[in-house]
Amino acid sequence: MRNELKIGVAGLGTVGAGVVKLITAQADLLRQRCGRPLHVVAVSARDRSRDRGVALDGYRWYDDAVAMADADDIDVVVELIGGEDGPAKALVEAAIARGKHVVTANKALMARHGAGLARAAEDAGLSLNYEAAVAGGIPIVKALREGLAGNQFARIYGILNGTCNYILTEMERTGREFEDVLAEAQALGYAEADPTFDIDGVDAAHKLAILTSLAYGYSVDFDAVFVDGIRHVSAADIEYAAELGYRIKLLGLARPTDDGIEQRVHACMVPTATPIAHVDDAFNAVVAEGDHVGRTVFEGRGAGEGPTASAVVADLIDIAREIRLPTFSTPAADLAPLTAAPMDRHIGPYYIRLSVLDQPGVIADIAAVLRDEEISIESMLQRGRAPGEPVTVVLVTHETQEAAMNRALSRIAGLAPVQAPPKMIRIELL
Amino acid sequence: MRNELKIGVAGLGTVGAGVVKLITAQADLLRQRCGRPLHVVAVSARDRSRDRGVALDGYRWYDDAVAMADADDIDVVVELIGGEDGPAKALVEAAIARGKHVVTANKALMARHGAGLARAAEDAGLSLNYEAAVAGGIPIVKALREGLAGNQFARIYGILNGTCNYILTEMERTGREFEDVLAEAQALGYAEADPTFDIDGVDAAHKLAILTSLAYGYSVDFDAVFVDGIRHVSAADIEYAAELGYRIKLLGLARPTDDGIEQRVHACMVPTATPIAHVDDAFNAVVAEGDHVGRTVFEGRGAGEGPTASAVVADLIDIAREIRLPTFSTPAADLAPLTAAPMDRHIGPYYIRLSVLDQPGVIADIAAVLRDEEISIESMLQRGRAPGEPVTVVLVTHETQEAAMNRALSRIAGLAPVQAPPKMIRIELL
Repeated sequence: MRNELKIGVAGLGTVGAGVVKLITAQADLLRQRCGRPLHVVAVSARDRSRDRGVALDGYRWYDDAVAMADADDIDVVVELIGGEDGPAKALVEAAIARGKHVVTANKALMARHGAGLARAAEDAGLSLNYEAAVAGGIPIVKALREGLAGNQFARIYGILNGTCNYILTEMERTGREFEDVLAEAQALGYAEADPTFDIDGVDAAHKLAILTSLAYGYSVDFDAVFVDGIRHVSAADIEYAAELGYRIKLLGLARPTDDGIEQRVHACMVPTATPIAHVDDAFNAVVAEGDHVGRTVFEGRGAGEGPTASAVVADLIDIAREIRLPTFSTPAADLAPLTAAPMDRHIGPYYIRLSVLDQPGVIADIAAVLRDEEISIESMLQRGRAPGEPVTVVLVTHETQEAAMNRALSRIAGLAPVQAPPKMIRIELL
Repeated sequence: MRNELKIGVAGLGTVGAGVVKLITAQADLLRQRCGRPLHVVAVSARDRSRDRGVALDGYRWYDDAVAMADADDIDVVVELIGGEDGPAKALVEAAIARGKHVVTANKALMARHGAGLARAAEDAGLSLNYEAAVAGGIPIVKALREGLAGNQFARIYGILNGTCNYILTEMERTGREFEDVLAEAQALGYAEADPTFDIDGVDAAHKLAILTSLAYGYSVDFDAVFVDGIRHVSAADIEYAAELGYRIKLLGLARPTDDGIEQRVHACMVPTATPIAHVDDAFNAVVAEGDHVGRTVFEGRGAGEGPTASAVVADLIDIAREIRLPTFSTPAADLAPLTAAPMDRHIGPYYIRLSVLDQPGVIADIAAVLRDEEISIESMLQRGRAPGEPVTVVLVTHETQEAAMNRALSRIAGLAPVQAPPKMIRIELL
């Protein structure tokens, strides 16, 4: 049997403690499957006194995580500190510089600095593994990098943020409004006190940028992702979506187009009949459409102690088994700079919801604006009649370009009988 | 760049031709992702003259596949001949004996002889990869062996046969009977002329036996699988299932019990709300329930040229990248013999459909039989009234043991007013 794999874990929040627990609980299984024991030798966190539900006295303690990178008896540094810069980045850089493999769950770090870190690791013959950074427990990084690596991908998309999916599912289930469900999710611990990264789509965009690099061989380019969240989705939209045969999900989607790589995160109406429409609550799912394999769907828990620890430990198992792979499937030296398709050039159907005064000629005015932008209406519904009062008008368009849609929405907003800024949700035909 | 990986492909049916096509079409991508070219140097099949939709003149031709194992310029033999014995087995054994890696899509071979072949390959430091043998294009072998390898599994189950899933979906969609839909599927080429292996569950059982070994660390033991198919499922059962909140799927399921490992393949009623209930047509899906990761679902195409070639090429990519892993995750030398839980000890709810004469006391007689076996009735429905004529009675039981259920069914079959052998379908609470 080969030597034990000696591990240092930096960051002892829920996930860090979960990793230490998993490695301890499954010691026999891991030794057998890896042909060598996995051994945590050191840990690092700021507060030594906190009870983390796991015995930590057997491990050497570092107050300064970066100092851990210097330890001669550590083979792999597990970075679970989080944050795109600061100590997390300093630790990963130091670890690679000292010849240590790295496992990280840090999507912000990988989305911002993944290409450079991958280059450094590969130049040094080291592994930089990050399965836990995308879709938690779902082994999607491995699937794209290895299991589906013989394919070119027409499209990669997924539900990448469990908090948003929980909120949207709960809004649909109860008919309640976004702010109300968010407040409850915060009280239950399903959403952060500062939920911005989740509900504004940033977290999903970090993950999408990583998936794009894996699938298409470009340097990770977070700034090229169009990012929008779910704050503007209302109970009424969810209800109309159901009536039209859709459900609303926050999707991240990447695909090559004639204008470059499209990467976007936003609320979408997806057809009820598509598998991803049935992924509910805090579950995540990723769909990869390969030219040979066809549509593959991967679903599981995207966050939480157990699922994230499962992914971190899978990365450690790969290192213990001496699997060394290009970080983003394509060797880092060959990753090309990404040309981003401008969001203005996006083409798709759109859902529009308007509050208009119920008076003669309103629909004609709206229809004229759409005609001027060459936007064709697929269906229209107006609920109720209330002459002189505001009523809701819902429009679904055929495929049109985002730029034309934005111009039309801006003109419609300026029409006198239109009572509030128009609501728009993109429809994704999956 | 390392030397090219030299490949011999034996068996040039749809999948073999697809593998050659994929390697040719994606040559640049594969060279980049593997850091070396993948190069087919030889092929083998019986009939040289057949048009396979791909140019084969550039490759050395073997009439005898086993002779290919002797070629000095081949690094990997791809076995796509099929069959659990005969030339497929001879070729794989010869290849391993001559120090060549093996990639196979042969589930029958791996289910029958996997443990011994794995031992031979691992003793020789060779890879024996078989991603295509289970669930086609879905990288489930890799997921269990690597991506989820830090978990113990409470249960592994899936829709493992696309032909059966297609037939059941089509029966549900059209209300037609099994024989009718099977005949159509055969005419369309979705089912084999001799469909026995598919519709009687043997193909799914081969795949399940492989998954069990991967997930639980036992030697593959096909003979320990309880196998039943879908011939007995009727349009009426599908209709009653819908009414009761279920869909009927052919499932393969493995789990550890106090009596040993339960491995079974049979038609199941699964709750409509569970993800696997929505896997339709020829799609396959596998669900792995890990103690840390929770429920993960993998869905995709389980057969066909492109998906199967995708899986075969993924195995070749692993070999080109010099990934060497224990064949069944646990090293072959450590695989334990499996203790099979007897099917008689299975516990679950049951659906029973009876044709009985509509006369006083019939239900009381049936209920008495169930009471005698301590089987408790969850619900009962009788459609229509036709005194003296046969009517359908449907029963759903609470959890009970298979042995008790079989005794009860045998007694019920003997009751005078019971017009035909009772139909029974197991319900699976997922």
